[in-house]
Amino acid sequence: MTFDLKGWTGERAAAVEQALSAWVPAQAPAGIGDAMRYAVLDGGKRLRPLLVLAACDAVGGNAAAALRAACAVELIHAYSLVHDDMPCMDNDVLRRGKPTVHVQFGQATALLAGDALQALAFELLAPDDAAIPAAVQARLCRLLAQAAGHSGMAGGQAIDLAAVGRSLTEDELRHMHRLKTGALLQASVMMGAACGEPSHLAAEGLSGYGAALGLAFQVVDDILDVTADSATLGKTAGKDAAQDKPTYVSLLGLERARGYAAELLEQARVALAASGLADTRALLALAEMVVHRDN
Amino acid sequence: MTFDLKGWTGERAAAVEQALSAWVPAQAPAGIGDAMRYAVLDGGKRLRPLLVLAACDAVGGNAAAALRAACAVELIHAYSLVHDDMPCMDNDVLRRGKPTVHVQFGQATALLAGDALQALAFELLAPDDAAIPAAVQARLCRLLAQAAGHSGMAGGQAIDLAAVGRSLTEDELRHMHRLKTGALLQASVMMGAACGEPSHLAAEGLSGYGAALGLAFQVVDDILDVTADSATLGKTAGKDAAQDKPTYVSLLGLERARGYAAELLEQARVALAASGLADTRALLALAEMVVHRDN
Repeated sequence: MTFDLKGWTGERAAAVEQALSAWVPAQAPAGIGDAMRYAVLDGGKRLRPLLVLAACDAVGGNAAAALRAACAVELIHAYSLVHDDMPCMDNDVLRRGKPTVHVQFGQATALLAGDALQALAFELLAPDDAAIPAAVQARLCRLLAQAAGHSGMAGGQAIDLAAVGRSLTEDELRHMHRLKTGALLQASVMMGAACGEPSHLAAEGLSGYGAALGLAFQVVDDILDVTADSATLGKTAGKDAAQDKPTYVSLLGLERARGYAAELLEQARVALAASGLADTRALLALAEMVVHRDN
Repeated sequence: MTFDLKGWTGERAAAVEQALSAWVPAQAPAGIGDAMRYAVLDGGKRLRPLLVLAACDAVGGNAAAALRAACAVELIHAYSLVHDDMPCMDNDVLRRGKPTVHVQFGQATALLAGDALQALAFELLAPDDAAIPAAVQARLCRLLAQAAGHSGMAGGQAIDLAAVGRSLTEDELRHMHRLKTGALLQASVMMGAACGEPSHLAAEGLSGYGAALGLAFQVVDDILDVTADSATLGKTAGKDAAQDKPTYVSLLGLERARGYAAELLEQARVALAASGLADTRALLALAEMVVHRDN
């Protein structure tokens, strides 16, 4: 029987939406709560949360911890989009089909809402709740902080910023993306794993899977920026080329970029197969979804 | 014998400087490390780290954990200044006697460096190091995340932003400051306490001390904004009045504001005396320093 990704995803994504709606505050002071909810709710593919939950399932981990981790990772992703869209960064006005946060709420509130979302992510990971062992809480904080910071997402954004108008080698481009988007995607997988006690072999397999998936995600993003329109993407299409940003398509051409995405999907498959985990169907299906998506 | 605050402070501040210099990366990508170090090193009174260390001493806590907590709190404080100084917020060009981070490095790098400093704070609190129990790591992450986020510092900044040009009641002003600056100062004390196992009585006393000190800090800040010059402050003086911001001085007048600061110092003293802790001299001396400082 083939794996029912749609059913699995629908159920998990609904749980994530409900948890995010409960945890992102409506009543925070002076409109910051409204901006936080606007940035997070009713939008996005929830890929990172689904990766957390799928990896936790695969290792038989603590489901309550995984739901918190799933939401925390999504909050980090959401805050990075809020800040990335601001005029001093990408200056974008459309995101997930809606005006960006700074267009809707003003730049100062966007800045603060992003900052507060990052803090909330760590608040979710360290609840005063004995049902989630302190060792798991600490591990989750460690993985997320490393993936979000200067040696992960924020560092990758800095490289991206410095690269506008310059030409990068394929190695430099890969390094940038491993940090900018790859680190958080890989961390999603590893945080799911950290909700349980994976064997060394399983942790290695999941790490390899996460690395390949993270890179594949970016290669496909670069392809879609060229081949899709803004309505399908829910964000401005063609902006990489307009900003003269280096991408996999500008570096490899469209055909070779597609081939590279397929190759990375195969690497993800091989890593899962080597993990020794009994059921990796959800993880595999998510990787396929990443590579075959159209937005 | 009177307590030698200068000696105590000098020794602890040196340890904090050394740790910050070791932990804030020089080699982060594309200039973000330079901006992070510029924002954090060689500046500031290090009041929050000193509160962490003094509270840890008072409860006989884990010194390695306290040094990490001290640096983490300072990183949160530093990132908030970087973002607060940006053109879309306070638009300030001078901080600690130097050009602000966005003036020196550009707005985009300032935004990212601030984001990365927040992540680094949590990275410091959750090291892969068995010498710091996971329960302590998780508690520290919880306290810092709550103090930094929408129900603490970021929320207070949002209220502050919304209050420009409006008149606030004393209750509203107090609420704003409890969040904006008070939450992180009080958290500094509670994080120091969380490095040990304080009795309920001790925790209560330290919490009351932290709350009074946090508010006193802001009252004195408002007084100094009126009475000191920019050279002494190391930042732009008189800017609250220039921006028509509500302050304790605009609300109470200078004399009553000074009386309120003295009253809060007394509250801090009483709370320490009720804590049952054997040696609170460093904490008391720090509160006196906060109220009697001239910058």
